[in-house]
Amino acid sequence: MRRDIDRILSEKNISSMLLYSESYKNVNMYYLSGFLAPDPFIFLKKLGEAPLLVVNQMELARAKKESRVKNVRSYFDYDYLRIVKSASNPKTGALKFVAALAKKELGADEPIYVPPNLPVVLADALRHEGLKIEPLFDIVEKARETKEPDEIANIKLVQRAVEKATSKAIELIKNSEVSANKALIYREDGRKKLLTSGKVRSVFDHTFADNGCVAEEETIIACGLGGADPHYAGKADDVLKANKPIVIDVFPKSVKNRYVSDMTRTIVRGKASKTVKKMFETVLDTKNAAMDAIRAGVLGSDMQKLCCDLLEKAGYQTIRGGKQISKGYLHSLGHGIGLEVHEGPGMNELYNHALEEHNVVSVEPGLYDPKIGGVRIEDVVEVTKKGCRNLTEMDVFLEV
Amino acid sequence: MRRDIDRILSEKNISSMLLYSESYKNVNMYYLSGFLAPDPFIFLKKLGEAPLLVVNQMELARAKKESRVKNVRSYFDYDYLRIVKSASNPKTGALKFVAALAKKELGADEPIYVPPNLPVVLADALRHEGLKIEPLFDIVEKARETKEPDEIANIKLVQRAVEKATSKAIELIKNSEVSANKALIYREDGRKKLLTSGKVRSVFDHTFADNGCVAEEETIIACGLGGADPHYAGKADDVLKANKPIVIDVFPKSVKNRYVSDMTRTIVRGKASKTVKKMFETVLDTKNAAMDAIRAGVLGSDMQKLCCDLLEKAGYQTIRGGKQISKGYLHSLGHGIGLEVHEGPGMNELYNHALEEHNVVSVEPGLYDPKIGGVRIEDVVEVTKKGCRNLTEMDVFLEV
Repeated sequence: MRRDIDRILSEKNISSMLLYSESYKNVNMYYLSGFLAPDPFIFLKKLGEAPLLVVNQMELARAKKESRVKNVRSYFDYDYLRIVKSASNPKTGALKFVAALAKKELGADEPIYVPPNLPVVLADALRHEGLKIEPLFDIVEKARETKEPDEIANIKLVQRAVEKATSKAIELIKNSEVSANKALIYREDGRKKLLTSGKVRSVFDHTFADNGCVAEEETIIACGLGGADPHYAGKADDVLKANKPIVIDVFPKSVKNRYVSDMTRTIVRGKASKTVKKMFETVLDTKNAAMDAIRAGVLGSDMQKLCCDLLEKAGYQTIRGGKQISKGYLHSLGHGIGLEVHEGPGMNELYNHALEEHNVVSVEPGLYDPKIGGVRIEDVVEVTKKGCRNLTEMDVFLEV
Repeated sequence: MRRDIDRILSEKNISSMLLYSESYKNVNMYYLSGFLAPDPFIFLKKLGEAPLLVVNQMELARAKKESRVKNVRSYFDYDYLRIVKSASNPKTGALKFVAALAKKELGADEPIYVPPNLPVVLADALRHEGLKIEPLFDIVEKARETKEPDEIANIKLVQRAVEKATSKAIELIKNSEVSANKALIYREDGRKKLLTSGKVRSVFDHTFADNGCVAEEETIIACGLGGADPHYAGKADDVLKANKPIVIDVFPKSVKNRYVSDMTRTIVRGKASKTVKKMFETVLDTKNAAMDAIRAGVLGSDMQKLCCDLLEKAGYQTIRGGKQISKGYLHSLGHGIGLEVHEGPGMNELYNHALEEHNVVSVEPGLYDPKIGGVRIEDVVEVTKKGCRNLTEMDVFLEV
């Protein structure tokens, strides 16, 4: 929907837009500009016109070569140093500069869309200059929710790397020996070593490096009780144990195109207890039921309701209605993925919007017990008119 | 200076502070809370009192275990679902929730410090509720500029990984053969292959993975003309050539403690031209002169002036005064590093503040020529009362 920004702007009666940010962390900036830069630059666009990038002099040549935006200028084209030096310090000076440039290029008469995360200091500076800024949700974030074919292709590429790495990691766990105290043991350079979360994570990191991906946040390898916290990553020296659930949650990013994917598998080396088996089967049934129900037009909140209904029917507590529990189902059914691991649309109690065609969302029910650990299974799907397309190709299984 | 936040607040007549953010990208949030989480949470603090974290229910158990903040509560302790559901949509609902919580815990009478990058939508919501927010530069950002011993130790750890990886990469380049057309060739699995930016980058990524680091942005391996753009990373299939300058700029992050380091070396496999040799010697002399001059009390702008003076004296153009050049010295002498690759204090024409003891800054003059490429040399130093302590241990050399 990148090419539809004009349509969204005109629906909201907005005639221009302004962003000022670096673009590694600020994915809206990267989405619009296609230019990766570690220092702030300016993106301007009037309705129906081609956008304009203004970058610092050092980045000018690179921006002209690498950005999707054709019209690129330098800060120095807008009297940068004089304006910044006229301020009490360089930080407020930079804000004055952006305000002066926006006023010159967009005018002060019409409302200018800015993203909701525009820094308050810049918003104040723009308003001080008389600019009518309109911080709105659901302009760029909304466009990002509906994926173009090239974006789906990017997500699939990352997902293939996720599956390659997860298979390698599971192979290592499967081939491990079990010591007398149930610790898993692997052999390296002819020596026996304890198999830790850190060692398994290293398999992921090396496989990512070989496949153009990077895990900015630690891949989750959480065995036993650790897995009871859904976001506990597993410490480097946490030893993996036989007969305990191991949650493996994998969500790297492509270094080059910046898209992510997301997959979770829960496995047991050896024999799972009856309790864990029941948790696993319940979570898997719930995931499959959710994937049968998902389609364009269904509310995110109804997807979460379906999930809570099934889990409660199976005898588990859920957080529905704001219950303060640490055992049972503790989170939402899923979230959008794309340039961020967590983006719109959501599938939770509060998200009362309909899913749309070409949304890409995770489907990830889970059950947690502070005395046992966690079981979570997650695939990523593309929402279609009549259902969904699973972008995940890897099987689901418990014991290895 | 983390323990001195109270002192900085009271100097500015601020009696409380509020942050609402995730903490992987927002390093102020991580700096204050010591808690890494992918979804937004709330940090509150009154002058002289211990801080309070409020997190979503799913993160409660983990936040209590992992955060530096002792007082941790759940969103559900503050009637989260009711407040969010009372709003027109969950996004504005979340803002209402933060505003209600801040009003309850901090009151609406006294000014509340918020960081400069607080999202405009939240600022508007807080002001709408009558809260007196004070977006100020130089509270948390200022505290972050002065490093505690544990922060210096964290940066040094990353720097050791940087040097280990750079040595390996240079070894690969040094041991390469030179083909008839000057392309570099290495052997893998008994076969000859072209040595590319991608292959060298892969040496970095694997070494980082083995040393608890990660390159969120691509390590720069820019040979020949590519290096003329200071931030051109080198495409995966860019073939490295003999007798051309190769800029290697390395700035990974520790996955666990989130600190970065930063180092640049420029090498030539084979023979450097006279022009490149002169560029290299001029840049090295400038770096050494800058490191001799740096100490607490010197203005950042004076450091840049010294650098421009030396380079202009040697016959090169510089960007001083806003000159729009693409050949010569195109950027600033350096920047602070810590939780971000680019943070305060700066050493550029606009930064008219004095450096302080325990600042950690890069010193990185460079010369660029669109017909030749780039030469940049960068070390990272800790500013001391009388000079600086070089945190970089690796030698500087040109030909390998």
